[in-house]
Amino acid sequence: MTYAFEPIGVIHSCFKEKFGIPRQPGLASEATATLELFAPYNSQEALAELAGFSHIWLVFVFHQALREGWRLTVRPPRLGGNQRIGVFASRAPFRPNPIGLSAVQLEGINCQDGRCRLRLRGADLLDGTPVLDVKPYIPYADALPEAVAGYAAQPPAVQFKVVFSAAAEAQCVAYERARYPALRRLIEQILQTDPRPAYRHGQGDGQCYGMRLYDFDLRWRIDDGQCRVLGLEPLDSGGGGDN
Amino acid sequence: MTYAFEPIGVIHSCFKEKFGIPRQPGLASEATATLELFAPYNSQEALAELAGFSHIWLVFVFHQALREGWRLTVRPPRLGGNQRIGVFASRAPFRPNPIGLSAVQLEGINCQDGRCRLRLRGADLLDGTPVLDVKPYIPYADALPEAVAGYAAQPPAVQFKVVFSAAAEAQCVAYERARYPALRRLIEQILQTDPRPAYRHGQGDGQCYGMRLYDFDLRWRIDDGQCRVLGLEPLDSGGGGDN
Repeated sequence: MTYAFEPIGVIHSCFKEKFGIPRQPGLASEATATLELFAPYNSQEALAELAGFSHIWLVFVFHQALREGWRLTVRPPRLGGNQRIGVFASRAPFRPNPIGLSAVQLEGINCQDGRCRLRLRGADLLDGTPVLDVKPYIPYADALPEAVAGYAAQPPAVQFKVVFSAAAEAQCVAYERARYPALRRLIEQILQTDPRPAYRHGQGDGQCYGMRLYDFDLRWRIDDGQCRVLGLEPLDSGGGGDN
Repeated sequence: MTYAFEPIGVIHSCFKEKFGIPRQPGLASEATATLELFAPYNSQEALAELAGFSHIWLVFVFHQALREGWRLTVRPPRLGGNQRIGVFASRAPFRPNPIGLSAVQLEGINCQDGRCRLRLRGADLLDGTPVLDVKPYIPYADALPEAVAGYAAQPPAVQFKVVFSAAAEAQCVAYERARYPALRRLIEQILQTDPRPAYRHGQGDGQCYGMRLYDFDLRWRIDDGQCRVLGLEPLDSGGGGDN
């Protein structure tokens, strides 16, 4: 038996590549995204009463995992990338059915000129992610703060202070003014838990790392127990800021 | 773009029909179920480290909703069945993609003789439900007790005391001894929030209601502010107790 699903919408997000995306939703509160609904779901009717909820579930497809397929075991980054656990004990994208699940904050709903968009916060989703379903977050059924969570009991720890070079600082100020008001805080949130695999955590390796964020290339280096943002160079691919 | 998914397993549950199923997981803690994994997922490897989690997410298909299709708006039972809300503001099964989501308690994992079964508690799932994914419940990302939940802020209220007729009492004692140890408590949990649509709540209508539970027909009547269990008649269809 096979079940076929078509996306109801698509995510527009600041995260243009997998590296650097927070490993669970809510870890980077400044990571905003929008869900653009496709017809015939782009209607106020389909969303009636949703605005009364502060959070929603997104059920989505890990579209970048489709090509690679799945494995019975995975090595989660938080366990250093060298311990194998069962795929069903993980939230890894390489699953038998590559369906993802994220609780995100619903900031608002904009429906006009035939377009419907949900404004989201705390999303850990790649730009272009196909969304299969939106559900209201219902605390009495979904919030189980006492649940025991094995190896994932604690959120990823803050690894270091994030400092900005003079050049990065100036770029940040300019970008914040122009388009991305909380950019500095977003960069801090992304980098402070160290996007590198856990076995490298704590090590200042002096190497330069980079990720694409919005429409620029964010570059940083880890040295002497701190993470130094080196710069935010604009990319000319364009279209990256659609969020 | 269409995404095709095949079930990783199937639910065996005491709930053999939709009427009477608790409207969210966790409301009937005595509702036990098992998830039987299909090959090649019926392996201890795929489940390694899952036993360290007290709760899991089940991502499943509302298989009984497939034929009926979806609607832009639904009338949730808790709003009395006469107020329309958007389908994305509801957890109703009649969704554009009929994917369900339930956090349930993981009681244990049994793998032997090539079969792998997860023992679950608090499941609000119909017998035969196809499961697409199992994920660990991660409180720091999934538990948002402060979330605001519009019309669904409160769990369904207990509507009345559940009492048992002498005949039902005797049947319950016999069934509990034979096979279903917490049957009486399960029946109380199912009936105390009143499975009827909300507009009938509080009304003692003297009518007799029934639902299929395990392999018997549970019958009750609502009168004078109490729910009276009339009997639990065995059904001869058999096979209903596979859970």
